[in-house]
Amino acid sequence: MEGEPISALCTPALVVDVDKVKENAKRMTERCQKLGVQLRPHMKTHKTLECADIMTGGSRRCIVVSTLAEASFYADHGYDDILYAYSLPFDKVERCAALSEKLDLFQVLLDHHDALEQLKKRPLRDGRLWHIWLKLDCGNGRAGILHSEPQALRLAQAIAETAGVQLTGVYAHCGNTYNCTGVEQIQSVAQETTILTLQFMEKLKSVGITCKSSIGSTPSCSHPVKDMAKLSEVHPGNYVFFDVQQSLIGSCSLKDVAVRVLTRVIGHCPHRNQLLIDCGWTGISLDGAGKLPTGYAVIEGHPNLKLLSMTQEHGRVEPISGPLDYSKFPLGSVLTLIPYHSCATAAMHPVYHVHSQGRLLGKWTPTRGW
Amino acid sequence: MEGEPISALCTPALVVDVDKVKENAKRMTERCQKLGVQLRPHMKTHKTLECADIMTGGSRRCIVVSTLAEASFYADHGYDDILYAYSLPFDKVERCAALSEKLDLFQVLLDHHDALEQLKKRPLRDGRLWHIWLKLDCGNGRAGILHSEPQALRLAQAIAETAGVQLTGVYAHCGNTYNCTGVEQIQSVAQETTILTLQFMEKLKSVGITCKSSIGSTPSCSHPVKDMAKLSEVHPGNYVFFDVQQSLIGSCSLKDVAVRVLTRVIGHCPHRNQLLIDCGWTGISLDGAGKLPTGYAVIEGHPNLKLLSMTQEHGRVEPISGPLDYSKFPLGSVLTLIPYHSCATAAMHPVYHVHSQGRLLGKWTPTRGW
Repeated sequence: MEGEPISALCTPALVVDVDKVKENAKRMTERCQKLGVQLRPHMKTHKTLECADIMTGGSRRCIVVSTLAEASFYADHGYDDILYAYSLPFDKVERCAALSEKLDLFQVLLDHHDALEQLKKRPLRDGRLWHIWLKLDCGNGRAGILHSEPQALRLAQAIAETAGVQLTGVYAHCGNTYNCTGVEQIQSVAQETTILTLQFMEKLKSVGITCKSSIGSTPSCSHPVKDMAKLSEVHPGNYVFFDVQQSLIGSCSLKDVAVRVLTRVIGHCPHRNQLLIDCGWTGISLDGAGKLPTGYAVIEGHPNLKLLSMTQEHGRVEPISGPLDYSKFPLGSVLTLIPYHSCATAAMHPVYHVHSQGRLLGKWTPTRGW
Repeated sequence: MEGEPISALCTPALVVDVDKVKENAKRMTERCQKLGVQLRPHMKTHKTLECADIMTGGSRRCIVVSTLAEASFYADHGYDDILYAYSLPFDKVERCAALSEKLDLFQVLLDHHDALEQLKKRPLRDGRLWHIWLKLDCGNGRAGILHSEPQALRLAQAIAETAGVQLTGVYAHCGNTYNCTGVEQIQSVAQETTILTLQFMEKLKSVGITCKSSIGSTPSCSHPVKDMAKLSEVHPGNYVFFDVQQSLIGSCSLKDVAVRVLTRVIGHCPHRNQLLIDCGWTGISLDGAGKLPTGYAVIEGHPNLKLLSMTQEHGRVEPISGPLDYSKFPLGSVLTLIPYHSCATAAMHPVYHVHSQGRLLGKWTPTRGW
């Protein structure tokens, strides 16, 4: 279908605007260069080779992944310097060892002494070292050892003192930027995470340990604070696609969002003042819980329409106010949804349709599973 | 990994108890035989060949699907008598025509005159007829022409009078049973849908039209009312897996649920009185919106634990009351989640791990997309 307009696609279909992807990638790369920190882009949003090539500028080096399936997928396609930024899962130590022994630089992450014990039990062959990032919780409230706990420093020391392993860096995810609205709030969280991370680096230095440091999230890296220049790396990911959520947080404007779900009108329900569309939760996900004024998505060009509810393959659309003019939405006509959360939407699609200015260029196929 | 215990799987993993699948399938088949109606099982929950073979008793005939991708998948594997029970999407007419010309009996569904016009524009080759089910809305409030509207009868007559097409049946989905709690409420909706459908069949008869009739949903077909014996077919699907939602509606008991998501503890957060598990929304979906007393799922054997929130690859688990005893949940230990909605959970997994009594038998691979 190359060269055809995206409207020729069967729906629902995830379409990716490759020009916006490239712009988003370029802007983040330049921002990090200017700041003087290494960008280690996260692959979790798209999980494709093509988009990874754009994000790494073709180097196929220095990426971060959320699943071991992603790590293997990228390793199988010539990628290296891969950070599996997920609290070491004990069922996957052997698979991690295999990647560590295959790649020049495969890196794992941990936040508990028991995980270090697991790695000690599986020394790498040929004198190789386990490359370990210590995950620090600097207020995000998910994974990581609390920055303020004395155990955090003790765990770092234990890693540094253990034979066969190396403390590569300290990693904090400032996912709490997702609760922000506006640049000021984002930068406040970014500043706090940066300062707490840098204070921890100072503590490490005082006991003779030096290693890398990294924080990240799309909001904080879209509006970095000066002190982030003192970090070694940042690791945002969503920025390559963006979404409605990021526009509401203030990471981007809606025009920067590179992905859409195309859907078609498949039903008229005048007795309910509703339309049915062929996009259910299999096409866009339930992320956002329908809490936008426009429901589960933004319907491009139709600010008065709301994606009210979805079942597996159906979406119910109604006007926010007034009666629907059905003549404007004949059966078969296309509506364009801007996803609330592009990571969640992309996860529902076995293939992405890539276009430039509305003309199809080809398909990207993501990896899935764990 | 055949023969190994399911606990040997890397997590998160969707596991299917094949004995329960067979029991659930057998019970529904016997119930329909006793009632004297044809069971046309729906494939949308699992979308696999192996489970379809169990549901059809190996006949590979008489199924219903929710996407054209499913229809093509089953057709490619020797299935026939396939009903694509989805308001005819105008972008897929040519693909539907191809299936109609390939199979002995491929059936489409419509609820609007414009859809009939689409079919008239694409007559089938070799004197074949389009087999059409008319979708009736008997109170479900999703797709279908309202049973009470005069246009419903007129549309049926138009189909019956059009050359090149055949009115095969009248189809109603009683998805409004999903708002029920208990057998009495389920049967009240089942009775109403049945009566409204049968009344419509009488109207058709009075203008000289006879065709099949079908209603369905897992709740109504799990507790059928006597009058359903007067229908030609029923078309439930979820019953083969069941889930927490179905147990709350009253379609089944929790012990009938054939699917689980295995997950592992990957973090201890004593400062928050929480555990982290390796199942986020990519592993179980956001369906149910976390509104169960136990959150997004039931955690088997731990009635005091709640799956409070999830991000892409993390779940936060906390006790409903009291402090967590972390010694009972060491890092790496397995927890077993019973999904709120098995259709939504299955849709997140590229492969299902099938077991009998906890011993792995093999994998089922679902089809995806549209």
